[in-house]
Amino acid sequence: MESTNSAILTSTDGLETAPTKFIEAGGTNFAYRTIGVANGVPLVLLQHFTGTMDYWDPAVVNELARHRSVIVFDNAGVGASSGQVPDNVEQMAVDAVAFIGALGLRQVDLLGYSLGGMVAQVVAAKHPALVRKVILANTAHQGGGNDLMKVLQAAMSQKQYPDPRMVLFFNDSQDGIDAGQAFLKRVYARQENRDPEGGPDVANAQAKAIIVFSTTQDPENTLLKAITQPVLIVTGSNDTMLPTDSSYAMFRILKNAQLVMYPDSNHGAIFQYHDRFVQDVEAFLSR
Amino acid sequence: MESTNSAILTSTDGLETAPTKFIEAGGTNFAYRTIGVANGVPLVLLQHFTGTMDYWDPAVVNELARHRSVIVFDNAGVGASSGQVPDNVEQMAVDAVAFIGALGLRQVDLLGYSLGGMVAQVVAAKHPALVRKVILANTAHQGGGNDLMKVLQAAMSQKQYPDPRMVLFFNDSQDGIDAGQAFLKRVYARQENRDPEGGPDVANAQAKAIIVFSTTQDPENTLLKAITQPVLIVTGSNDTMLPTDSSYAMFRILKNAQLVMYPDSNHGAIFQYHDRFVQDVEAFLSR
Repeated sequence: MESTNSAILTSTDGLETAPTKFIEAGGTNFAYRTIGVANGVPLVLLQHFTGTMDYWDPAVVNELARHRSVIVFDNAGVGASSGQVPDNVEQMAVDAVAFIGALGLRQVDLLGYSLGGMVAQVVAAKHPALVRKVILANTAHQGGGNDLMKVLQAAMSQKQYPDPRMVLFFNDSQDGIDAGQAFLKRVYARQENRDPEGGPDVANAQAKAIIVFSTTQDPENTLLKAITQPVLIVTGSNDTMLPTDSSYAMFRILKNAQLVMYPDSNHGAIFQYHDRFVQDVEAFLSR
Repeated sequence: MESTNSAILTSTDGLETAPTKFIEAGGTNFAYRTIGVANGVPLVLLQHFTGTMDYWDPAVVNELARHRSVIVFDNAGVGASSGQVPDNVEQMAVDAVAFIGALGLRQVDLLGYSLGGMVAQVVAAKHPALVRKVILANTAHQGGGNDLMKVLQAAMSQKQYPDPRMVLFFNDSQDGIDAGQAFLKRVYARQENRDPEGGPDVANAQAKAIIVFSTTQDPENTLLKAITQPVLIVTGSNDTMLPTDSSYAMFRILKNAQLVMYPDSNHGAIFQYHDRFVQDVEAFLSR
């Protein structure tokens, strides 16, 4: 089943220059950008804690957009979108589905990164007809635990790197540092119409959502067992924010999952290994 | 560093028809076959419990041989090779290195499957200059545990499938059964000059080697920490013989490993998902 609206999904721009567009759904004015061309099932990206559309890596987004339309957006209350950031993953999923519906898309693939991966789990479980395949990147399952506060505190209190993502996303090894610096260059490549940064209200509501989701026990794994779509799980060898163990646990619980883990990498594994990640996602989406 | 002996490494045959050749090393007459063309670093395959060269899957071997020379062989005392099967992994590693040396190869990649993966760990740790990259498929680390005897007993006592590999290698799901039947067709495709099957002496010595290796605790992970080469670890979601957990543990311990796990699959995961496996190995060896 393909999109009903191919005009909306075709763009000649990369992520660095794609114009920000807006669409209204359920009282929220959602900001979004499309990269790539309408071709089969579009891929919708679900973003991490405090991240806007400008936090995605062009090396991932533009390469994935070679064969499909990739849609990035600010969920309710984030970046250039209107509305309030909800303090729970379930409402973020409701908002994401409203946005997808407003675009007229009948079937999508989801790539959820970190907090976005939690939202992707809920959307996939609740909307089996809407979601064809799911990529869960550097994320955790219900009850999978998190070290968000500890890791954030350490990243904010260090003075070595002005951008905390150097510490949050990459290992303190030469490969990690090199990858982090290359990543930051890529995400700052966009010069015009960057999204507004979020304030403490965004961070507080999203932090609560992550902490509640990843510490709420789901002993019967009700959520993961409700996901019937094929899932690709990807993470780093040493994710200090959302534990690598949680990705392994998800793989063991999900009915139809493939697991990929990269060496010497942290919460930003998919950006550090953007070439491998794009290759792995391509293989997963095309088979 | 490439092979010094490209004539020996080039073959126009697939695994099903490649002639069996022999080379002497350390008093053992080793049987081997080469598939593919001399091109860069050759890939040497290390075989599983009681397996001969005919137990490899042509869908894996022939596809991997599109871009390189793939070498399969019977280790000492197995199949068409002379000599005694040692009852320990360390001596199997010594024998494999003697075989590789006799071919005049100065650098190789290793693909070790099951017992062969244990042998590959020892060869890689002891011979950093000889081994460039290592693929550890459906295998376990020292102390990783095994259910060999329990699983063998169940496979031998069932009457449904004449070939126990249907039970040992594949899940009892429709996908697993279909994959198993397709696999058996492929491995029986060779009509002429099949290897002799091994007797109880092969099985007994190899079983002892597997059990001792996978139940000998290595609390400091001395063996894995001595492996400095890039490693690709691949296994199934539910390996009932050598536990999936052991592959995850190896990934966490090794310095430079990538992990891939396939859905709904058992000890024969790399044969069930031969297309994905070849793609993953290609990406790993070529980057």
